[in-house]
Amino acid sequence: MGQNYTPTARTRVVREAERAVYDRDAVCRILDEGFVCHVGFVIDGQPFVIPTGYGRAGDRLYIHGSAASRMLRNLQRSVPVCVTVTLVDGLVLARSIFNHSMNYRSVVVLGTARAVEDPAEKLEALRRLSEHILPGRWAESRPPNEQELKATVILSLPITEVSAKVRQGPPLDDAEDYAFPTWAGVIPLQTVAGEPIRDQRSDPAIPVPAYARGYSRKRGAE
Amino acid sequence: MGQNYTPTARTRVVREAERAVYDRDAVCRILDEGFVCHVGFVIDGQPFVIPTGYGRAGDRLYIHGSAASRMLRNLQRSVPVCVTVTLVDGLVLARSIFNHSMNYRSVVVLGTARAVEDPAEKLEALRRLSEHILPGRWAESRPPNEQELKATVILSLPITEVSAKVRQGPPLDDAEDYAFPTWAGVIPLQTVAGEPIRDQRSDPAIPVPAYARGYSRKRGAE
Repeated sequence: MGQNYTPTARTRVVREAERAVYDRDAVCRILDEGFVCHVGFVIDGQPFVIPTGYGRAGDRLYIHGSAASRMLRNLQRSVPVCVTVTLVDGLVLARSIFNHSMNYRSVVVLGTARAVEDPAEKLEALRRLSEHILPGRWAESRPPNEQELKATVILSLPITEVSAKVRQGPPLDDAEDYAFPTWAGVIPLQTVAGEPIRDQRSDPAIPVPAYARGYSRKRGAE
Repeated sequence: MGQNYTPTARTRVVREAERAVYDRDAVCRILDEGFVCHVGFVIDGQPFVIPTGYGRAGDRLYIHGSAASRMLRNLQRSVPVCVTVTLVDGLVLARSIFNHSMNYRSVVVLGTARAVEDPAEKLEALRRLSEHILPGRWAESRPPNEQELKATVILSLPITEVSAKVRQGPPLDDAEDYAFPTWAGVIPLQTVAGEPIRDQRSDPAIPVPAYARGYSRKRGAE
């Protein structure tokens, strides 16, 4: 309850520090609403940023390793990463160009990701990742066999060195700009799910499951 | 017409190479539909990934530097970056857990970003960035003054070392799994704009502009 992360020199928000959030519940809510992260890693001094799916399980992120081949190739099985999750909530239209902004919520997690090696732990990590992205689906799918599990890379990253940044609400203009004759406000943006599209090879007698019909990321943190 | 980027050892897609796209028009369409990128950079061997707004102007990306303070602090005015733009189009529900996937389009641009210093170039870069995110808004806003322009950081990155990765369409299952009795298909996802929310301090006599009412990222590449 009310637990806070301690910002380090690396996670302390430098710009617009009033937007910084170190509250654990707030961080977890952002991580739970998102399901795609951007993983940053370094090879020969060059940064790489790759999008991939992830799941949260308590104070741990499980990151799908489809991005991992380049990251893990020629490397030991652990690697310094930055994992960033961003939810874009709207465009903020101010009177001045300078005060235009976006409403967003983002989380940055720094640390050393390690590949999950133990088969039982990997299966459980994969289940948590799957349930994070699409709750209910795991139990209705053909589970991974030994070979598939071997071919799957899951990275595990503790959520300890972490910060969030949040901007919400109307534009904030300089006092003398409020009289400027232009519309000002917010264009809200959200990610919405459309009608599920049945695979042509899927038996029409099988109903669309509830978790697909009513898909939404808006749920409380668990 | 039909121009292709030449993949380098760093941009050649390693995993799922059949999803790789090096076609210039396809890359530009993805960059034009997106407006938030994730910028990766390195400090003391640690990768950082920060979300920020961007715009495309021809073969150049202009990246808003709200993320730049940590990136540029103590550094020269140019820095190796990776800029990644990701559009998530849907969840792909296969019969097997292993063949679950996402439909997405992503672009990765590598290179050296430099801060735009010349005031005239910076103003034009800012205009291109603004028009990329919200076409029509620039002309109806109070333009940046000299001080604001000085306080704005814009990074410029040539779109030369670049690759895209695209997955679309239904799930692809192993032959023996098609009989598995579960629903299979795609949950389409898209980012949609809601009804614009007028700032309480905005004069109700000013109508909501068309670019705010009908906001959509679905437009052709220019």
